[in-house]
Amino acid sequence: MNYFSSDFTLGILGGGQLGKMLLSETRKYDIKTHVLDSSADAPSRLACNEFFQGDLNDYEAVYKFGKNVDVLTIEIENVNVDALEQLEKEGIKVYPSAESLRIIQNKGFQKKFYKKNNIPTASFETFASKEELNQAVTEGKVQFPFVWKSTRFGYDGNGVKVVRTTEDLANIADTECIAEVMIPFKNELAVIVARNPKGEIKTYPVVEMEFHPEANQVEYVICPARIANEVAEKARKVALQVADALKITGLLAVEMFQTQDDEILVNEVAPRPHNSGHYSIEASYTSQFEQHLRAILNLPLGRTDSKVAGVMVNLVGAEGYKGNVVYKNIEKIMAMDGVTPHIYGKRETRPFRKMGHVTIIDENISKARETAQKVKETILVISK
Amino acid sequence: MNYFSSDFTLGILGGGQLGKMLLSETRKYDIKTHVLDSSADAPSRLACNEFFQGDLNDYEAVYKFGKNVDVLTIEIENVNVDALEQLEKEGIKVYPSAESLRIIQNKGFQKKFYKKNNIPTASFETFASKEELNQAVTEGKVQFPFVWKSTRFGYDGNGVKVVRTTEDLANIADTECIAEVMIPFKNELAVIVARNPKGEIKTYPVVEMEFHPEANQVEYVICPARIANEVAEKARKVALQVADALKITGLLAVEMFQTQDDEILVNEVAPRPHNSGHYSIEASYTSQFEQHLRAILNLPLGRTDSKVAGVMVNLVGAEGYKGNVVYKNIEKIMAMDGVTPHIYGKRETRPFRKMGHVTIIDENISKARETAQKVKETILVISK
Repeated sequence: MNYFSSDFTLGILGGGQLGKMLLSETRKYDIKTHVLDSSADAPSRLACNEFFQGDLNDYEAVYKFGKNVDVLTIEIENVNVDALEQLEKEGIKVYPSAESLRIIQNKGFQKKFYKKNNIPTASFETFASKEELNQAVTEGKVQFPFVWKSTRFGYDGNGVKVVRTTEDLANIADTECIAEVMIPFKNELAVIVARNPKGEIKTYPVVEMEFHPEANQVEYVICPARIANEVAEKARKVALQVADALKITGLLAVEMFQTQDDEILVNEVAPRPHNSGHYSIEASYTSQFEQHLRAILNLPLGRTDSKVAGVMVNLVGAEGYKGNVVYKNIEKIMAMDGVTPHIYGKRETRPFRKMGHVTIIDENISKARETAQKVKETILVISK
Repeated sequence: MNYFSSDFTLGILGGGQLGKMLLSETRKYDIKTHVLDSSADAPSRLACNEFFQGDLNDYEAVYKFGKNVDVLTIEIENVNVDALEQLEKEGIKVYPSAESLRIIQNKGFQKKFYKKNNIPTASFETFASKEELNQAVTEGKVQFPFVWKSTRFGYDGNGVKVVRTTEDLANIADTECIAEVMIPFKNELAVIVARNPKGEIKTYPVVEMEFHPEANQVEYVICPARIANEVAEKARKVALQVADALKITGLLAVEMFQTQDDEILVNEVAPRPHNSGHYSIEASYTSQFEQHLRAILNLPLGRTDSKVAGVMVNLVGAEGYKGNVVYKNIEKIMAMDGVTPHIYGKRETRPFRKMGHVTIIDENISKARETAQKVKETILVISK
């Protein structure tokens, strides 16, 4: 297949920052793209060949969009899977597949899938409603503290809560959910796996994540993770096991816990480029976005190892600010060695909204981590 | 000044591959851009905020375009400088300045400028026409072999010829020109200098260039150049001297000869991102395109050193092919370690047309150079 400067068309469902960064690679290869997003101001609006406005959860919108492309991919999981299934039947290549997406979209299905495939994960129970969950707590079948997760439409921490008290429980949403045993972990880790249709498969190095205690959003992603080699090897193996079980095509980001006794438990997965892989744009031989493209187009996969160490800091809207965004002190962080800001192109900031990220690279990981701290303490995402 | 996700507008004169790669960085920073180019199919058509079609050498077209931007830059030298001068008078920031561009546009002015500023360069004579040059040759004032250069509109080797015989002389164009003493050089080198309005200045490492013997286009660019440290230091010093004399803002690519006795002579310069700096996208801490943007926006300059060694191979149209392009064996080169193709997005190939480039990176420069050779022997830019 001739993808380069040709009529071949790649469709991307979703026009957020992940799509925008993916478009950087389609432009590099001069691959024709269509993008579907509900917002006319989507970050991916520029740099695609044709932009379509429509609801990603609407069968007709997704089906019609998909009929005009050769390969269809996603940059967000919450899309209409029935439409994808129909498109597959009609010969459109959909990566990730409708089948794998159906499992991943629902955290209950995801957890059951892990269990069925002997993939290590924290124990859990599924509940059809908040009432059922309340009942189980009252009966002592579920005990505080536990992790509550909405089975659907969780994103960036909405839909995930640590429940420690009756009051916490009262505040969660009324929805189908799971209650998961809380793991007293040493580290949160992630591994990105890439796989193409001809079966070539590669893993990126293990990264280490630090979360903001309140917002439940990643603050730092550190590559490579500062963990023992054996633990890293185990994490990469578990990630491969998940990708293999899901028969994924494209990328699969696997988030994991390293327990106190160095076991690896899968937390959740995303079948696409992922926040935990942003460091790869500057630090890796092949960025995760280029790799996703190579994988879904059945091209050879690129090297997944790193040129230098990388630390990523998310730029989220500061509390107390809402309105037209200003990146205060951005010149100051750009004066620091090895610092590259990525601005997603959202005009309006609000508390904890993901507005961009900053990558810090260095030959020396401690130096990169130090600079990352300074970046974090210096830049402020506020409004005018 | 708030450049990020704001109404600030950067204008780019020219919509070719250099502009396209620059837009990758404006998208990363979410900086609003306008692009002017004569072709509706320009590679930069996508990824800018607004595209304008117009003649870059037309006063009115450039002036009108420039009036609606805050900072104006170029990705090609052949633009109407009178319009730039007027825009500067009216308060638009033009980088590089009209004054420096006027010198650089004309190779005769360039050479005289080097002489006046004690910048080492090959001896030369200026001629108003081919007739004058013929006369000088007849009278023995200019001797074979010499390098003929049209003073204006030379690009990618058109406008530069080695003249060894009366027949060669007969075949050159009738235009204002210079005749330069032919330097029996060891190496062709290049250094990119970056300078911002507040006077911060940095040089990239010296790169080594290998030219195609017939087409006079670069075949390989190797970073770092495999030369002695003292020679590299000298080359960086000379490059700084040129940038300083020209009071450049943005990038200045300085092409030089390393003579048999290790002197450095300036060949010519380009006040913009340059083919000799493409390796920097993958190999450097800061790509030349990001650096150009940082410089013209008066932001702090990024690190110019390399993460790994880089070799760049130009993808030019194969002889004997004209029409819709096909990148034959591109999958094969993508299977090689550290190989990234860049496809500029020109649908039609013709002999020696620059269609893209490939960067090969590795910790080991010899390994990168070996792979580059394989890339060169494998890929073919042909037509259907």
